[in-house]
Amino acid sequence: MNTPAPAEIIRKKRDGHVLSDSEIAFLIRGLSNRSVTDYQMSAFLMAVFFQGLNAQETVVLTREMKNSGRTLDWSAVRSKFPDKPLADKHSSGGVGDKVSLILAPLAAACGLLVPMMSGRGLGHTGGTVDKLESIPGMTLKLTDGEMVAALEEVGACIMAQADDLCPADKALYALRDVTATVENVSLITASIVSKKLAEGIDHLIFDVKCGDGAFMSSIEQARALANSLVKVSCGAGLKSKALITDMNAPLGSMVGNSMEVEESVWILKNEYPSKAHEAVAKPLVDLTLRLTAEMCVSAGISKGLSEGLALCQTKLRDGSAYEVFERMVRRQGARPDWMRGLQRGPALFEVKAERSGTLGQIKSRALGTAGLEIGAGRKRKEDSIDPAVGFEVLVRSGERVEKNQTLLKAYLRDESQWTVIRSLAHSIFSFDDETYRESPLVLEEVSDVAK
Amino acid sequence: MNTPAPAEIIRKKRDGHVLSDSEIAFLIRGLSNRSVTDYQMSAFLMAVFFQGLNAQETVVLTREMKNSGRTLDWSAVRSKFPDKPLADKHSSGGVGDKVSLILAPLAAACGLLVPMMSGRGLGHTGGTVDKLESIPGMTLKLTDGEMVAALEEVGACIMAQADDLCPADKALYALRDVTATVENVSLITASIVSKKLAEGIDHLIFDVKCGDGAFMSSIEQARALANSLVKVSCGAGLKSKALITDMNAPLGSMVGNSMEVEESVWILKNEYPSKAHEAVAKPLVDLTLRLTAEMCVSAGISKGLSEGLALCQTKLRDGSAYEVFERMVRRQGARPDWMRGLQRGPALFEVKAERSGTLGQIKSRALGTAGLEIGAGRKRKEDSIDPAVGFEVLVRSGERVEKNQTLLKAYLRDESQWTVIRSLAHSIFSFDDETYRESPLVLEEVSDVAK
Repeated sequence: MNTPAPAEIIRKKRDGHVLSDSEIAFLIRGLSNRSVTDYQMSAFLMAVFFQGLNAQETVVLTREMKNSGRTLDWSAVRSKFPDKPLADKHSSGGVGDKVSLILAPLAAACGLLVPMMSGRGLGHTGGTVDKLESIPGMTLKLTDGEMVAALEEVGACIMAQADDLCPADKALYALRDVTATVENVSLITASIVSKKLAEGIDHLIFDVKCGDGAFMSSIEQARALANSLVKVSCGAGLKSKALITDMNAPLGSMVGNSMEVEESVWILKNEYPSKAHEAVAKPLVDLTLRLTAEMCVSAGISKGLSEGLALCQTKLRDGSAYEVFERMVRRQGARPDWMRGLQRGPALFEVKAERSGTLGQIKSRALGTAGLEIGAGRKRKEDSIDPAVGFEVLVRSGERVEKNQTLLKAYLRDESQWTVIRSLAHSIFSFDDETYRESPLVLEEVSDVAK
Repeated sequence: MNTPAPAEIIRKKRDGHVLSDSEIAFLIRGLSNRSVTDYQMSAFLMAVFFQGLNAQETVVLTREMKNSGRTLDWSAVRSKFPDKPLADKHSSGGVGDKVSLILAPLAAACGLLVPMMSGRGLGHTGGTVDKLESIPGMTLKLTDGEMVAALEEVGACIMAQADDLCPADKALYALRDVTATVENVSLITASIVSKKLAEGIDHLIFDVKCGDGAFMSSIEQARALANSLVKVSCGAGLKSKALITDMNAPLGSMVGNSMEVEESVWILKNEYPSKAHEAVAKPLVDLTLRLTAEMCVSAGISKGLSEGLALCQTKLRDGSAYEVFERMVRRQGARPDWMRGLQRGPALFEVKAERSGTLGQIKSRALGTAGLEIGAGRKRKEDSIDPAVGFEVLVRSGERVEKNQTLLKAYLRDESQWTVIRSLAHSIFSFDDETYRESPLVLEEVSDVAK
């Protein structure tokens, strides 16, 4: 009778005690072998919400969640490319955040192998899987053989989470979602890191977003998450670093699934529709270069950040990254003319400047929420999305604009959608002739302090 | 779409807000109509553990739990006896607590109608249902017609909780038991009071036990529970009062199911095996008289406590209470020779004084735990009990004893049981020649302060 009773473990956490490795393992294994019920797990999750988990408990929880399923096997790829490390990036989610679409091929062009598993969008932020699915013919569901072949031939693939990776995370997240136990740094950390551990990678960069359009609106929240992510990843043996980055204005000019693919291609090809589009995209490009450079430095491909940035700039400018992107999407089923198949919503509406002046901070959360209302995102997990609808932002925060200048174009299904979001779309812009100051791109860096 | 999402209600309580009446109603009704899942309810219960419920929330929770099933219908009894109020007592549980067996017939003899629903024992304290079931032939399951007939003909019945009363309480308790959410004053209050409301009574006295042998070991805990019970009962329209009473020494000399029935009969008949037994039983008798007198005062049968005590003493001494008891158990199936059918465990063992001196506090929790070990009580709800085994305590705390005087007799199944509990049985007694002082019987009284 050495089996711990679930209620005793719940009680221990409820009363603020630290759980042993075996107690945490018992709970997570118990979820799949049914020795722990859903209702016991949700009571445990609520106790964790109030009492927290320390770093060691979170490492064990993360490992157990990883071990609930299989880990991707890259032995064939590794023996073929013994000098190429496997690396990935994780973002906490933002509005217009299409970094992954550019970073994965860019990192591969720099000499990394990038088996990137991504998620779908939920709430006001988009998901990489949804964006790429707007490419005609492209599949995000890859078999093991397809992943291995993609890494061997292209160096990068982007795919949806495989069903047999981290099943405990799926079960836990489904419970947390309906029991008001999502918002806990340790549980968020374990969910993110367990999936990255199951990817079988060597290096990981976290992009923890902070600001109006991020889940973490304050720097304190973002710092807590970044510290936890890095501490737990490194504690579980995955080399990682986090950047806390500004997520006030939307990232780039395009927000909406197929429209974000369009902008990614502009950046990868260095061919913008206008100078305005290029100017609006600059923070997005800089962020992508910085994150990719950090991966190169961590993996030992570049000796320092400036060397890494130079390498990434070269591989972006010389078309290498675009070439990888094109081969990657074609390998994953995109039709030869896929670019022409990208759609924009048929009904165009515009927001124009009501006066001349200097714009204040562009409000990305309002833009993300407007995206939700028109079906570019999901209010609930089971919602389907409309890949074509979206927004084109033509100005930057702090920019001088003239009266009647077009600030935003909305590509919608029909006029009724415009009626719904019209005032929301206008609320994205404000004038601030005096106090607006640009935020730095990277607010803070977090490395593993324990090492 | 005015239906609240369960997760939003959980979040509200998690974040320390007060729930509306309709939100609490939604949760409790949702348990039976399946719009709220078990795992959402257990997360809610854990949130309540941390954030609490205020008096109004607890009143609404209690009413909703009562309304989840039917309420006993006494209209026929009331029209036949328009002047007789319906009253009951609830005890928070103690060791040797056989008050109900004496109080129910005594209160009926005083002119009250007592439809007493009782529970089974769990942990180191016993349950009235278990005790009465040791009477050969007696049933604690009564139909509505049998209950009505019992009140009309005898004035009292004691029965097990009917299955269709407070089904939400059953469901909630089953969840709390396995999710470490039992120990919350509001949830305990709602569970107790909802069942008493469903009994359809007019007056209720709470016996909140405090001390070594009680669930509430400190006066602060007992006071919090007593205040909550009275406030919520009165808030839900049931006139009530609570006494916080001493539960350090066991109540009476007998601990064990059939042996407690024996002692109840001694008290009801005023025929004790010895002066020692009578002396040990005195606090139990005094407590029973006091609780019954409080019921008579609340119901207006007696004008004040001293008048109530005098009435109860008369009805106990003149054999009226015993007569009701005999008719009550016979009505509920007890065979004519039921008294001879009461068993004691066949293997007798004794604890004797190791020296002469004055005894310290007799430790009722150790005695209750020893009872658990021999099968007089239940460690888990699904355990069965042995009605015959038990203990006979022959001395009182603070009493002067001689070396080798018998302090306790244990009536067990066999010697192997004695081997298990021998040292525990000895630990019940200690010597304290200087500092022992008797506790008062009633530590505090709690009436509804809001009125």
